[in-house]
Amino acid sequence: MAGAFAAGRASEASPSSAGPAREKTYPFRGEHQAGIDTPVQDRLHFAAFDVRTESREELVALLQAWTEAAERMTGGGPAGPVGPVEGASNLPPDDTGEAIGLPASGLTITFGFGPSLFRDASGRDRFGIADRRPEALARLPHFPADNLDPARSDGDLCIQACADDPQVAVHAIRNLARIGFGTVAVRWSQLGFGRTSTTSVGEDTPRNLFGFKDGTANVKSSEAAALDEHVWVGAGDSPGDWLAGGSYLVARRINMTIEVWDRQPLGDQENFVGRTKDSGAPLSGGSEFTEPDFDLPGSNGPAIPTDAHVRVVHPDLHDGARMLRRGYNFVDGTDALGGLNAGLFFIAYVRDPRTHFIPIQNAMARSDALMEYLKFTGSALFAVPPGTAPGEYVGQSLFDA
Amino acid sequence: MAGAFAAGRASEASPSSAGPAREKTYPFRGEHQAGIDTPVQDRLHFAAFDVRTESREELVALLQAWTEAAERMTGGGPAGPVGPVEGASNLPPDDTGEAIGLPASGLTITFGFGPSLFRDASGRDRFGIADRRPEALARLPHFPADNLDPARSDGDLCIQACADDPQVAVHAIRNLARIGFGTVAVRWSQLGFGRTSTTSVGEDTPRNLFGFKDGTANVKSSEAAALDEHVWVGAGDSPGDWLAGGSYLVARRINMTIEVWDRQPLGDQENFVGRTKDSGAPLSGGSEFTEPDFDLPGSNGPAIPTDAHVRVVHPDLHDGARMLRRGYNFVDGTDALGGLNAGLFFIAYVRDPRTHFIPIQNAMARSDALMEYLKFTGSALFAVPPGTAPGEYVGQSLFDA
Repeated sequence: MAGAFAAGRASEASPSSAGPAREKTYPFRGEHQAGIDTPVQDRLHFAAFDVRTESREELVALLQAWTEAAERMTGGGPAGPVGPVEGASNLPPDDTGEAIGLPASGLTITFGFGPSLFRDASGRDRFGIADRRPEALARLPHFPADNLDPARSDGDLCIQACADDPQVAVHAIRNLARIGFGTVAVRWSQLGFGRTSTTSVGEDTPRNLFGFKDGTANVKSSEAAALDEHVWVGAGDSPGDWLAGGSYLVARRINMTIEVWDRQPLGDQENFVGRTKDSGAPLSGGSEFTEPDFDLPGSNGPAIPTDAHVRVVHPDLHDGARMLRRGYNFVDGTDALGGLNAGLFFIAYVRDPRTHFIPIQNAMARSDALMEYLKFTGSALFAVPPGTAPGEYVGQSLFDA
Repeated sequence: MAGAFAAGRASEASPSSAGPAREKTYPFRGEHQAGIDTPVQDRLHFAAFDVRTESREELVALLQAWTEAAERMTGGGPAGPVGPVEGASNLPPDDTGEAIGLPASGLTITFGFGPSLFRDASGRDRFGIADRRPEALARLPHFPADNLDPARSDGDLCIQACADDPQVAVHAIRNLARIGFGTVAVRWSQLGFGRTSTTSVGEDTPRNLFGFKDGTANVKSSEAAALDEHVWVGAGDSPGDWLAGGSYLVARRINMTIEVWDRQPLGDQENFVGRTKDSGAPLSGGSEFTEPDFDLPGSNGPAIPTDAHVRVVHPDLHDGARMLRRGYNFVDGTDALGGLNAGLFFIAYVRDPRTHFIPIQNAMARSDALMEYLKFTGSALFAVPPGTAPGEYVGQSLFDA
C-alpha cells in the first residue's frame, strides 16, 4: 500500500469495530458478499455496466482485477498496488486520489450479474454461461404504471458501493469503472443518501422523503433464520449451484411527486401509508413494531384502509414473503417543471424474485394508495454471487464449470 | 415547537458548541448571514428560484415567511409552528417530516437576490427596486469556453442550505420551496458533498474530484481583515447601502471530464495544477501552505509552468484579489456516454465580482491548463444581503426605502 495513503486511511489490519464509525472496515471476503446483511451505511453509489468485450477471458480478468481492487479499497487502501501519488510521473496513477486521507468509512462493494450477461437480446450465449442462468434471473416484467427510462434500467453487471462518506463510495465506483475501461462501460449510476431501511432489531427506523418511517418489517441481519428463508439463495436453486449463498438484487428507481404529496392532509397521508407519521405505529394501534390488525374496524371501514401501503405489501398477503430492503433516498436536482427530481432508490435482496418481489410489486401497482404519488423510472434485476473465498475472484463459481 | 420534533432534534436553546457535530446549531440572525464564514459543512443543497408574482407585497411576505422558517429549522426545529405530525388531520402538515429525529446538523440557510429580481429581461422594474441594484449585480458575462445550460443558470432568488446531513439540507430547501409555492418556483437545484474548501487556518484541505487538494489559498473565516477586504460589501458600495455587510455569491457548475483526467500521467496532472498531488505543495517546493515561487526555474522552463492553475488564478496576478470559496463536489449520475456527470459546484463569496471573480475567470478560461478537463455548465450571480437583525426579515434593507 502506498505510504501516503496508508497514513491517512484505515489500515487493512484494523479491527473492524475499533475507532469511530468512519474508521470502520468490513472484510471483502466471506461466506456472503458484504453489503447485503451489513449494517446499512449512510451513502450509496450504485452503477450498472454494459460489457463491451466478446471475450470470456477478458471478462474473467476484469472480475479478478475488480476483486483485488475491491479488497484493497474496502480495507481502506487505494484501488491499485502503487496508489495515487507514489508511482512514476510518466504514468497515470492506479488510484484517482480523491479519497487520500479519508478512512474506509465502512465501505462495502457488492457485485451482481444481470440476465443480459448470459444471453443478449438476440438470444446469443455471449460468454458460454447461458446454461448456468437460473430461471429466476429474467428481466423483470412490465408492471402496471411502470414508466421506465431505458437509460436508467437493466445492465450486464452491477456494483453497489455503500459507505458512510459519499466521496468514498464515489471513489470506489469511479476506480472500478476506470479499471474496467475498454471492457465495460457504465450504463447508468445512481447516488443515494439517508438510508431508508434498518438491519438490526431495535435500530431507529429512518424516514423516506414522504416523511414516514420506512422498512419497519424489513428482514434484519440478526435474523439468521429469516435470512436463510428469504434472502440467501439455497442449494439446488441454480444450475451447478453457483448462486448458492448469493441473492437477487432488485433495483427500482421510484420518483415521488414530492410537491403534490406535501399538499395532502396529514390524515390522508397516514391512510395512504396505513401508519401514523409520528411513531410509525399501524393505524390499528400500538407502536411501530406492533403487528398491524387489518380486521380492526375504524370509523369508516377498517382502521387500516384496504388500499393502505402497509396492507397491500404485507407478508400475510404474500405467503409470508419478506425482503431485505436496502434502499436510499435520492434527490437528483430539479425536473423541467421545477419539482424535485427525488424519491427512493429501492434496493431489495431476495431469495427468489418470482415469489419475493414480482407478486408484491404487482399488488402494489394494482391497488396501493401510494401509487398516485409514485413514478417508477428505473428497474433492474441482478444475481448476486456468494461471498468470495481467499484466493478466489468474485463470481468464480459461475465461470468454473 | 412540536413535541415529537423537539424530542428528536436539537433544541434552539442548545449551545452551539455542545455535543457531537450533528447537534451543532448556528444562529440564523447576526451581523452577516450564516453560511458564508461558517465552518464549511459536509453537504449542500442549493436552489435558484424564479419569482412568479408581480406583487411586491407578496414577495416581501414570502421573505418574512422564509425568515421565520429558516430561523426555526437552523435551530433544529420544524419549518412551521405546528410541525410535521401535531396538526389537524384534515390539513397538510406545515413540515414535511423527513427530518423528524435528525439533529440540526450545523444547518445554515443563506439567501441571495439575482440581477433579474431588479429588472426582468425586458428592462421592467418588477418590484420597485430597480434603482437599488448595485452596478456589480449584473448577469455574468459569457466567458470563453462557457457551455452553459440555461436550465442550470441564473435565477431571481437563491437559497444555499448547508448541513452535515444531506437529508437535513434537502429538508430545508424542500420546505422553503413548499412555503413559496405559488409565489416562486424552483428554477434549478444542485446537491453537493465533500466540501472542497476550508474556512479555518490549519484545517486539513479536502480534495476535489481531480484528487487534488483544493482551496489552499482560500480566505479563512478567522482572517477578519481579509474578510473585510475581499468578502463583505463595504459602506458606499450599494445604493442606500442596503448591501453593506453582505456579499456576492458566484455559482458555477463545473463538469470535470473525469475519465480523461484519470488517464493522464501523474506528472502531467501535477503540472496542470502546479502542485504535487500528495501534499499539495507548489511545484516550486515546500509544503502545502508555502507560497509558490513562479520564477524558480525547473528542468524545462519554470518549475511551476506558466499555464498551471495555481499561477493563472493566483492573487499576485490579480491585484491581490482573493475569494472565499465554498464549493462542493457533485456527482449527478452518468452522462449519455457513460461518463460520470460529475465535477465541482463552485461557490465563491466576494466583495465585488468585477474585481474578484470576472478577471480571474477570464484568465482561467484563456490560459489555464486545467481548462481542457473542465466544462462550465451552469452560472449565476446573486447579491447576498447582510445578516438579519432581531425582528427583521432577510433582505429587509433592500425593501425599506
